[in-house]
Amino acid sequence: MEVKEARQYVVDKLEYAFKPNSIAVIGASRNETKVGFKVIQGLRKCGYEGELYPINVKATEVAGIPAYQNIKDVPGDVDLAFVSLPATGVFDALKDCVEKNVKIAVVSSSGFKEVGNGDLQNEITKFCREHELPLIGPNLVGIGTPYHDFNCGFIPYLPNKGPVALISQSGSNLLAALGSSQIDHFGISMFVGLGNKADVDFCEMIKYADKEPNTKCIAVYIEALDSPEAFKKACLECEKPITAIKVGSSEIGVKAAFAHTASENQGHSNAEYDKLFEESGVLREKTWQEFLDTSLALGNCPPLRGDNVVIITNGGGAGLLAADHFERLGMPLKELKDISPDLRENIRNYMPAFGSPLNPVDISGTATSDMYGGALKTAYRDEHVDGILISVCPTAVTDVEAITETVINIHRQYKNLGKPFIMECQGGNECREAIMKLRDKGIPAYSTPEQAVNAMVALRRYSHIMNKKEKLIKNI
Amino acid sequence: MEVKEARQYVVDKLEYAFKPNSIAVIGASRNETKVGFKVIQGLRKCGYEGELYPINVKATEVAGIPAYQNIKDVPGDVDLAFVSLPATGVFDALKDCVEKNVKIAVVSSSGFKEVGNGDLQNEITKFCREHELPLIGPNLVGIGTPYHDFNCGFIPYLPNKGPVALISQSGSNLLAALGSSQIDHFGISMFVGLGNKADVDFCEMIKYADKEPNTKCIAVYIEALDSPEAFKKACLECEKPITAIKVGSSEIGVKAAFAHTASENQGHSNAEYDKLFEESGVLREKTWQEFLDTSLALGNCPPLRGDNVVIITNGGGAGLLAADHFERLGMPLKELKDISPDLRENIRNYMPAFGSPLNPVDISGTATSDMYGGALKTAYRDEHVDGILISVCPTAVTDVEAITETVINIHRQYKNLGKPFIMECQGGNECREAIMKLRDKGIPAYSTPEQAVNAMVALRRYSHIMNKKEKLIKNI
Repeated sequence: MEVKEARQYVVDKLEYAFKPNSIAVIGASRNETKVGFKVIQGLRKCGYEGELYPINVKATEVAGIPAYQNIKDVPGDVDLAFVSLPATGVFDALKDCVEKNVKIAVVSSSGFKEVGNGDLQNEITKFCREHELPLIGPNLVGIGTPYHDFNCGFIPYLPNKGPVALISQSGSNLLAALGSSQIDHFGISMFVGLGNKADVDFCEMIKYADKEPNTKCIAVYIEALDSPEAFKKACLECEKPITAIKVGSSEIGVKAAFAHTASENQGHSNAEYDKLFEESGVLREKTWQEFLDTSLALGNCPPLRGDNVVIITNGGGAGLLAADHFERLGMPLKELKDISPDLRENIRNYMPAFGSPLNPVDISGTATSDMYGGALKTAYRDEHVDGILISVCPTAVTDVEAITETVINIHRQYKNLGKPFIMECQGGNECREAIMKLRDKGIPAYSTPEQAVNAMVALRRYSHIMNKKEKLIKNI
Repeated sequence: MEVKEARQYVVDKLEYAFKPNSIAVIGASRNETKVGFKVIQGLRKCGYEGELYPINVKATEVAGIPAYQNIKDVPGDVDLAFVSLPATGVFDALKDCVEKNVKIAVVSSSGFKEVGNGDLQNEITKFCREHELPLIGPNLVGIGTPYHDFNCGFIPYLPNKGPVALISQSGSNLLAALGSSQIDHFGISMFVGLGNKADVDFCEMIKYADKEPNTKCIAVYIEALDSPEAFKKACLECEKPITAIKVGSSEIGVKAAFAHTASENQGHSNAEYDKLFEESGVLREKTWQEFLDTSLALGNCPPLRGDNVVIITNGGGAGLLAADHFERLGMPLKELKDISPDLRENIRNYMPAFGSPLNPVDISGTATSDMYGGALKTAYRDEHVDGILISVCPTAVTDVEAITETVINIHRQYKNLGKPFIMECQGGNECREAIMKLRDKGIPAYSTPEQAVNAMVALRRYSHIMNKKEKLIKNI
C-alpha cells in the first residue's frame, strides 16, 4: 500500500528484521513439508542463536523446542514474529503481536490481494500502520543475511557473503539469485523477498540498506511500485549505487504480475518507469544476467570517472567482442595514443613484437603472468587511464592460475587509486576457478567479454549519476 | 584470399583435415613449450591412433616417435601436413608437401598478413591453389572433432560431443568455446580456427559441415569475409541452420581485427553485414553468449513453426522476466485461451487453485514433478501449441532432480511431434546439475529466463528463414 515517504519508525525497526534477538513463529508446524516447520529448520541449520518460540495452538513442542499456544504466552520479549498461518488467521495473529509489543512482523502466508483478497490485505495494513507494527509481506519467501547466519523463511540456503543487498519482490527470483550466489560467488550482504509489500515498501528497505555496513550496492527487483515518489526520494537520498530490474511491462506481463504479487501496472508504461528510474538516479537493467553482473561491479568497484578504458588481452577475438560491445553501448574505446602520450610505448615493454599495442592491447597468445602484470601496472600508473579490463583466454601456454595470482596482488597494491578493474576469463575449469577466486577477492570477473563490458559501462553510468544527483535532489 | 565459390576439391579434401589417417608435423619440436611439440602431445593425449610423422631437420625422434628430416623422406602417404615453422620457412615446406602429394595442409605459423607480410601470404595461397593443396590457416590454433578423438593444434582439450560445428576465425574464441563446452556441456561436433584464411574459406567449411553427419547446426565466428558472395551461396545451399557472430564492426574494431587476423573491414559497414546475413539465411547474433545459446538450441531442436509458445513455471518472477523478454524480441506471448480453446482448463488439472493458468502458466512454488509432467504433456498434446518453455526455480519444496527426470522422459516420448522444448533453471548446484543432465539428453537448458527466450525466438527466426529460403536462392 502507498506510503508518502519512507517512514522512520519502519526504517528503525528493520534492524529487528535482519538482526532479531528473539523470533516467534506463529503457525509453527511439526509437518516437515510446511513453511511453519521449514522456517525453524532453516534458522537452526544456518546458525541462528537467538531465542526461538514456536507458536502452535495444539503442540507443546515443535522441532524439539517448547511451543506456546499464543504469542502472548511467550515469557520474554519478541523482536520478530514470523507468521505462516492460512490467510484467514493472519489478522488475529497480528493483533496478538501488537499486544505483545512485537517489533516487526514478517508474513509468508499467501491468499491476499494476489488472489482477490485485497480488502483483507488493506485492513491488515491499516491496522499495522495504526499501531506502528511494520509488516513485511505477505506472500514472502524469506529474509536474511549471511553476515549474521540468519535465514528466516523457506529458502534452502544462505548466499555467499558480499556487498550486494538484494531486495526482491519475487520470491522465485530471490531464490535464483541466492543459488547463483553460492555457485557463482555472487556476494550478498542482506536479502528479502517483499512479496505483496502490503506495508513495508521498497523505499524503507533502501533506506535501511543504505545504512547497513556490509552493503555497497543495492539491487532491487520490482514488479510494480505503489509509491513511486517515495521510491524516488529514498533513492536520491541513498549514498550507495542502486540497480533495478522492472518486470511486468509487457502486455501479458501486466496480468501475470498481478496474479503473482498483486502488482498493479495497468496504465504505467515501461517508458514511465524508464523516466522514474532516471530521475531517481537508479541504473535500470534489462535482463536478469545484466542485473546481477552490474550489481557485482557496483558493489566492488569505484565509479568509472572517465571514458579512458584500457583492455589488455591475450586473445584478439575476445578483445574484438569487447571493443564492439563498448561501441554498441555508446562508449567507444580510444586508441592508447589518444588516451595518454607514453602509454603505447610503456605497455609495449610487456608484449612480444607481434603483439598489438592498439586498444584492445593484444599481448598475444603467448602472454605470461609477468607480461599481464607489467601491462596492468603500466595502465594503473598512467594518470590518464580511468579503468582497466583484463581478458584471459586459455591457450596451451597460458598459466591462468599464475595470471590470476598476479593480478590479485597488483589490484591489492593499486586499488586505492580508485580505478575500476574488471576481469574476463572464458574457458574450461581453470577459467571458472579463476573467476571464483577473483570474485572472492573483490574483483568483478565474468565469463564473456560482453558481460565485463556491461559491468564497466555501468560504473561509468553510475559516475554520471553521482555528478547529476545534486541537481536531481533539488527537483523532488 | 577471395574465392568465387566453394571449390569442390577443397570440400572433398576437408575430409582429410578432420579424419586423417596420417599426419606429418613439419616443425616438430622437442621443446615442450613449442607448438611443434604441443601438437604431437595433443594428438596423442586425445587419442589419435593414425600414423604420426614428426619432421625435424636435426632430431631423429620427437616425443618418442621417429622423426624425418623432410616430409619427402616419410615412407608412407601423408593425409595432413601440420606446419608450425617460422613464417619464412612455410613456403618451402608447402612445396615439399605438393611433391609428397599431401592431401591438405594446416598452418599454425603466424607472421603473415596480420603483421604486414601480405605478399608472402598471397604467394603461398597462389601456389597452393595452382597445385590444389588446400591450406587451412595460417595463424591457426587448431582443428579437430571429439567424435574421432582428434585434436590437432595447440588446444588443451577436446570439447564435449554434440551437434554444433564451430568454425571460428579467432583462435582465442574457439578456445573459449571449447572450454565452455567442457564445463557447460555445450556439445560440439567439429571445430576449426581458420586464422588468416589465406586459402580455405568459410564457404568451404560450411559445405563440409553440411555433409558432416554429427553436425546439426553450424556456428560461425567471423572477423571479416573475403568472399561474401561465395559465403552467401554456401549458406543458402546448406540444409542445416547457421548462426553467425561478426566482430570488428566498431571503429576501433576495424583496426584490431586487421592486427588480429588480417581482416579487412574498412568500408564494410555493420549494416552491410546485417543485409548479407539476412540474404544468406543466417541468424546473426550480437553477443558471444547469445551466439552459443542459440547454436545449442538450433543444434538440438526443430524449428518453431508458429508463435504459440507456452511457459510453465513454478516461479512467477522467472515467468515475468521471460514474458517481458518475448515481447521485447517482438514475439509476445499469447494467453492460453487465445492459443487453444481447452488448454486453460486442461492445464488447470496440474496446479493448485492458487496457481495462475495465464501464460506464463504459474503452477506455483509448491509444484511437484507430477504437476510439471502433467502440464508438459498437456502442452505437448495440444495441437495448437508450437513450443514449450519450462522454468524451474528451487523453492524449499522443489525436487529439481525429480522434475528433471520427469521432463526428460516426457521429452523422449513426445519429441517426434517436432515441437521445440526448452528448459530454464536458475539456482544453486541442483539447478546447475539439472542443466548439465538436460543438455546431455539433447534438451537446451539455460540458467536465466532471457537466455531460454533468446533460444526459443531463434528457433522461430530459423523457421522463417526456412520458409523464405527458396526465394532467397533464386536471387543468387
